[in-house]
Amino acid sequence: MARNNSTVNLAPKMLRSIEEMRAFEAVRPLGLVPTMGYLHEGHLSLVRRAREECAAVVLSIFVNPMQFGPQEDLERYPRDEGRDLALAREAGVDAVFAPEAREMYPAGFTTEVRVRGIEDVLEGAARPGHFAGVATVLAKLLNIVGPDRMYMGQKDAQQAVVTRRMISDLDFPARLVVCPTVREPDGLAMSSRNVYLGPEERAAAAVLYRALTTARRSGNRSPEILEEVVRETVLTEPLVELEYVSASDAGSLGPVTADTREVLLSLAARAGKTRLIDNVVIG
Amino acid sequence: MARNNSTVNLAPKMLRSIEEMRAFEAVRPLGLVPTMGYLHEGHLSLVRRAREECAAVVLSIFVNPMQFGPQEDLERYPRDEGRDLALAREAGVDAVFAPEAREMYPAGFTTEVRVRGIEDVLEGAARPGHFAGVATVLAKLLNIVGPDRMYMGQKDAQQAVVTRRMISDLDFPARLVVCPTVREPDGLAMSSRNVYLGPEERAAAAVLYRALTTARRSGNRSPEILEEVVRETVLTEPLVELEYVSASDAGSLGPVTADTREVLLSLAARAGKTRLIDNVVIG
Repeated sequence: MARNNSTVNLAPKMLRSIEEMRAFEAVRPLGLVPTMGYLHEGHLSLVRRAREECAAVVLSIFVNPMQFGPQEDLERYPRDEGRDLALAREAGVDAVFAPEAREMYPAGFTTEVRVRGIEDVLEGAARPGHFAGVATVLAKLLNIVGPDRMYMGQKDAQQAVVTRRMISDLDFPARLVVCPTVREPDGLAMSSRNVYLGPEERAAAAVLYRALTTARRSGNRSPEILEEVVRETVLTEPLVELEYVSASDAGSLGPVTADTREVLLSLAARAGKTRLIDNVVIG
Repeated sequence: MARNNSTVNLAPKMLRSIEEMRAFEAVRPLGLVPTMGYLHEGHLSLVRRAREECAAVVLSIFVNPMQFGPQEDLERYPRDEGRDLALAREAGVDAVFAPEAREMYPAGFTTEVRVRGIEDVLEGAARPGHFAGVATVLAKLLNIVGPDRMYMGQKDAQQAVVTRRMISDLDFPARLVVCPTVREPDGLAMSSRNVYLGPEERAAAAVLYRALTTARRSGNRSPEILEEVVRETVLTEPLVELEYVSASDAGSLGPVTADTREVLLSLAARAGKTRLIDNVVIG
């Protein structure tokens, strides 16, 4: 169903309102790539996968205020819609849904989707309310866009687990497709927030993936040892401060047990003022 | 689009699993009447309205454990599926969706839809968690059945407000239609729980609607006076004990203000062990 890549792509339809998005008559299957914009190769890999599997692709661009805490970077989150649209066109997106915040959260808005338990650990413990914001906006996007498949990156591992659970529990008629993390040549996971990094911080940040792969290569599956290897490796880089590292069950995000099939080794860290996350799955 | 009432109705399709329900190919528009079964004239009035407005009607029967508190009547809630199916057939329902609890809430289920603020007052204050259970199961039913319209009775006034807000906030592509409360000849609001009432309690319970209409007829719109008239009227009936009465803004369920267009005068009471609710809207 993929279109010929040599075709010149038309500019995607630009849809600003929920009403316009609903009126967009997509061929099926329809793929949705939800983003906060400032697109990078990670997002584009999701679009490519969606183009391979779907007859039409909608990219959403929405910096979702509900998933930011009061002390977080909502105001300074990087934005460049012109560049995003050019990349979306190049990647063969059929429509871009880019609503304003007041379109998504009009006066009186009060509903919240909670994925209890899963939302409270790891990133959810560090960022209270974050996953309620994520689950709520994704429930809205699923209802507004009505995709058959929704695409996310493994970099946001917990987001993928929360979303899969929400889709399953609330019976949304869509399937979640999780794609591999795309990395810079030195291993740093692609992120819109990488633009915050100064040159020295940028170089230092490579320690995070190095720490994760060192732990994975150790061959050990003990959570304590995996976490300790990450801690010791990150300590070698004075410009990077580890916020947490955790080895958990990749399915439940709970503790690793005898039944654990895959271990999610995930971390958050700061390089200067910039908060970064990354993870690897150990089979 | 209503079918000819003289037609002999076919037995509705009986759908037990989410998969069967999804596979049901309904003509559009599709109406959904969500119920907990033990059907009475109130439910049937919803089915009739749905038949007038829709090309196909799905009735769901599901005694939703998530909306019952631990001390409530989940176990003894009245059930009679055979009778319900006969009534559904007579009313011209096209399909009955009647899943088991384990189909709707499999192991690991953890998602919760909250309509903050609105869910905490009136019935929500008396029944903590009740509306999270209601909103969550209705989100599921909307996704599983995919109706164009969903029908509810005004007797569950707060449920209607919570549901309308949830549909709007999460952008479900369905419209809520709220139909008038159907009453017994003496004014008692129809409810599956009326079957719990002994004969003396049943006669005494008529005081509730009498109290609400006495307050409405007083011509007064002061919340305190409306509430006081209800309190005094119910006091005349020793078999009925008022749990609460509240005059609130019918739109927000908050306090009555200068901007209030309609006042919702609502109450909960007990006749013996049976808990009853009722309300009137004062324009």
